[in-house]
Amino acid sequence: MESVGRHLIMEMWDCNENLDSVEAVRHALTEATEACGATLLEMFIHPFTPQGITGVAVISESHILIHTWPELGYAAVDVFTCGKRIQPEEVAPVLQRYFAPGHVQVMEMKRGIVDARARVPAGALVR
Amino acid sequence: MESVGRHLIMEMWDCNENLDSVEAVRHALTEATEACGATLLEMFIHPFTPQGITGVAVISESHILIHTWPELGYAAVDVFTCGKRIQPEEVAPVLQRYFAPGHVQVMEMKRGIVDARARVPAGALVR
Repeated sequence: MESVGRHLIMEMWDCNENLDSVEAVRHALTEATEACGATLLEMFIHPFTPQGITGVAVISESHILIHTWPELGYAAVDVFTCGKRIQPEEVAPVLQRYFAPGHVQVMEMKRGIVDARARVPAGALVR
Repeated sequence: MESVGRHLIMEMWDCNENLDSVEAVRHALTEATEACGATLLEMFIHPFTPQGITGVAVISESHILIHTWPELGYAAVDVFTCGKRIQPEEVAPVLQRYFAPGHVQVMEMKRGIVDARARVPAGALVR
């Protein structure tokens, strides 16, 4: 089915590295953006007290986002991309290299499915 | 099941208003943040050419995010919150008021389910 975007939802558990490193999150998001062929518009990284980080890469093709909970060894990742050129699955190995999860679950949702709606012609998607 | 966060995924179709208004997206995200009881850390809004907007509100409790496709009358919304105090469902009526969708689909995912993992004690969640 034709859709506006692909949304990968990743649950990374038993992460062994870098969940509380601002620099690692920054590098990971930068490399993840490049790996999937996206264009970075803005990056925002916020470290929490006593621990945990939120990192957002806003890309021309939507977003890559990570929230970390070092106390649980857990990171929640969302990769939302639009456009056929972008391959969000390429983000996964980059993040796995940085955070070394022992276990990863990935789910993909198609967002904005246009085919299923008679009122939205499939050809209406212009980006 | 105890989880780290609640992730609301909203598909708003047939939106009649404001999908291409930077100011409306800014106000909507501000009000949405207040409505669910969250604390705003950073807001970033990017208008695309020829149309469409990405708006991100990074909150202490995770994020509220909207991508709009005016040409389709469609907006993709994600509300990810952690902490029992925050009520992500309060975001929905605010966004519906700003964008006047004819049809809305909402799905909730629990993110970081700790109960299901024997290696992570349920009491380990500290924020």
